[in-house]
Amino acid sequence: MSTKPSTPAPYKPEPITGYTEWLPEVRLVELRWLDHIRSVFESYGFCNIETPAVEEIEVLSAKGGDTEKEIYALRRLYESPNDAEPRVALHYDLTVPMARYVAQHYNDLVFPFKRYQMQKVWRGERPQEGRYREFLQCDIDVIDNEDVSMSFDAELPIIVYEIFQGLGVGPFSINVNNRKILQGFYQGLGIEQVTEAIRIADKFDKIGADGVLKSLVEQLNIPADVAAKCVALAQIRTGDSSFVERVRALGVQSELLETGLTELQFVIDHMKDIPAGHIWADLSIARGLDYYTGTVYECKLLDYPGYPSVCSGGRYENLVGAYLRKKLPGVGLSIGLTRIFAKLLKDGKLPVAAKSGTQLLVVYPQGADRDAVRRIAAHYRAKGVKVEMYHEDKKTPKQLQYAVRKGIPYVLFPGADGAPHQVKNLATGEQVEVTADWLPG
Amino acid sequence: MSTKPSTPAPYKPEPITGYTEWLPEVRLVELRWLDHIRSVFESYGFCNIETPAVEEIEVLSAKGGDTEKEIYALRRLYESPNDAEPRVALHYDLTVPMARYVAQHYNDLVFPFKRYQMQKVWRGERPQEGRYREFLQCDIDVIDNEDVSMSFDAELPIIVYEIFQGLGVGPFSINVNNRKILQGFYQGLGIEQVTEAIRIADKFDKIGADGVLKSLVEQLNIPADVAAKCVALAQIRTGDSSFVERVRALGVQSELLETGLTELQFVIDHMKDIPAGHIWADLSIARGLDYYTGTVYECKLLDYPGYPSVCSGGRYENLVGAYLRKKLPGVGLSIGLTRIFAKLLKDGKLPVAAKSGTQLLVVYPQGADRDAVRRIAAHYRAKGVKVEMYHEDKKTPKQLQYAVRKGIPYVLFPGADGAPHQVKNLATGEQVEVTADWLPG
Repeated sequence: MSTKPSTPAPYKPEPITGYTEWLPEVRLVELRWLDHIRSVFESYGFCNIETPAVEEIEVLSAKGGDTEKEIYALRRLYESPNDAEPRVALHYDLTVPMARYVAQHYNDLVFPFKRYQMQKVWRGERPQEGRYREFLQCDIDVIDNEDVSMSFDAELPIIVYEIFQGLGVGPFSINVNNRKILQGFYQGLGIEQVTEAIRIADKFDKIGADGVLKSLVEQLNIPADVAAKCVALAQIRTGDSSFVERVRALGVQSELLETGLTELQFVIDHMKDIPAGHIWADLSIARGLDYYTGTVYECKLLDYPGYPSVCSGGRYENLVGAYLRKKLPGVGLSIGLTRIFAKLLKDGKLPVAAKSGTQLLVVYPQGADRDAVRRIAAHYRAKGVKVEMYHEDKKTPKQLQYAVRKGIPYVLFPGADGAPHQVKNLATGEQVEVTADWLPG
Repeated sequence: MSTKPSTPAPYKPEPITGYTEWLPEVRLVELRWLDHIRSVFESYGFCNIETPAVEEIEVLSAKGGDTEKEIYALRRLYESPNDAEPRVALHYDLTVPMARYVAQHYNDLVFPFKRYQMQKVWRGERPQEGRYREFLQCDIDVIDNEDVSMSFDAELPIIVYEIFQGLGVGPFSINVNNRKILQGFYQGLGIEQVTEAIRIADKFDKIGADGVLKSLVEQLNIPADVAAKCVALAQIRTGDSSFVERVRALGVQSELLETGLTELQFVIDHMKDIPAGHIWADLSIARGLDYYTGTVYECKLLDYPGYPSVCSGGRYENLVGAYLRKKLPGVGLSIGLTRIFAKLLKDGKLPVAAKSGTQLLVVYPQGADRDAVRRIAAHYRAKGVKVEMYHEDKKTPKQLQYAVRKGIPYVLFPGADGAPHQVKNLATGEQVEVTADWLPG
């Protein structure tokens, strides 16, 4: 007697922590997001580049800082552990690859170089809400040989505004500041450890006015009345350029401060066509990264006050100094797409609907001539309709059920023996004869 | 006297072997390719999915074979080498991720599940022309619980035909065969080592009829007259279903052979609307991978006879057996986008032109009101035009030069004091007054 061999329990795949993956109906929404973002970027004349997923480790490590610890290096699975150090690693942002790209292709680019880049990046972070190991960033930057017009500093937030409005991310604020204001103000106050002080003030969002005051006094030995002025500065937030008078009222003198105020005023004034409530001169914004030297941006979704910034960036003076014997200034912004999308998805705020973008299902009448039915589908497809054929030789209700489950709005029943075709609208139940001109409504 | 500190020689970034990267004008063409491929996939009702760049190593290793050696595992750059084995690695194709995806989300998918996927994959191959370490694949597959209609086997090459025609890849052939024909024919001839024999016959393309004959006789001890029949089979190539009679004329009897002939005839017959010369029943095609059980595809660019296949795939019976207690059959095709694109680029066959998709440059007249100029740009942008503003305060010739270098076809000169704007066509030199209705031709 033979015994039936026991089947091994199948290996059950699980989601990998820190990596997102969407069902087709969610991906359909994400694709619409990507199309919208791309079309806005392109409508402002930004060109696309795509860089490899990897860079040389030497390139990625040059920036330094905490990110270096989060770099994922590549190595062949079956190499011996004694092999040489891996030479390449996955990029952790799109700024470093862009800098390397600009340096490498310098002679083939037209300046000002306006590029957008929409790619995955990878970081070995501890995954939590809003922080992923793989996520999609949408970056724009303008880079030039000498000066980059301040008008770009005003144009970038307008682009982000258009994108966020179009995506329907809910209420949001784009907060703008200028590092020269902070540096000039702190210097004018006689504070010596300006960088450290800025780093503390940057936590205003998290630790509040009292926390910043306390840290400045205790950690940097700044007199309480001086520290109070730093806090007063961080509390200035205006929707127009009235921040200038409020800063001046604090009575701090510094040439750098004046330059910063002029620059920020220029930027805010040139965004006046954006409806009120979206753009703020927010003098608490500092951005941690040292390479920003002027305008800095930070965007928040107002429905989620504790959620991290969903778009940030700023102006820098020296992008490619590590690669070329010149400094290239620029200004850029990075939209954290996965961070926004995943949050809205979780919160039920995305218009997730049909499982497919198909507009029309052509029914296969059992036993019909497949060539004839295929030509009906091809006819409407040539007119730009997304048409699916039902190929299985199954009864009509089964075919209709497929359309319903996939969210296909129209079903076409081919007419037998030259009779006109009929189209059924699955939402209304209405069924009508159609001509060759018919298009889904 | 102070000495000027010596500047260290900048680190000169070089391309990383095996990774491609395009200039903006080339990327513009690649984007058009991706848009076209996506639109054809969607016009046939395929939905998009995107999976993470990584899979668990357990998942990637399950398929076995040579590819395993090419897997790139991830590890944190600054972990100690004594750490546990890396758990995830970059995917080397899109089939394994799809199988895992279908198993993981099985209950949320509608079957037949028709998906397309356009993503980078990574392989630790020795780079050479046509073989890259990072490359873009565009896959479509149809998967179902029980049967998948043979009509899909005919639909997939039609989709590839439409894509290749639209992209303008030059002359190409889509070669179709059926593994059942090979297996049935070899079994009918009394050959025992069928798999090995198929593997040898698969080299027909490389070693020719004599080479196959010799290998079959010498390596598998097959009598010369029997081997000659195998070679005769591999030499059958027809644009219609006349291959059936030619196979039968070889006088081999086998039930499996008959099934294969019927299936391949069905597929070839249902592609009759494709102009002659593109689709071939080619009985030499075997595809190395063992998991194909019926239809197999292989596409070649006819201008490059020695170049590897640019699109391949086939029908399989058991996609997710490793994950679920069921077998899901399917049929799929994978377009090797990077392989095609890089070859045509190198060969000067791509329509690489403007460095940017911008249609209109709005000139900034020195000293003009920036708000007014910005509103002109916004006006045309709202009408769907891709509009760039020149922000720098530079003389007009400099601004025109920028448009010329970027390949922007039209330049708008804002009218001063309410005068109408003028638009110059940079190709013809013609300059005309325009109204608010104007659109680039």
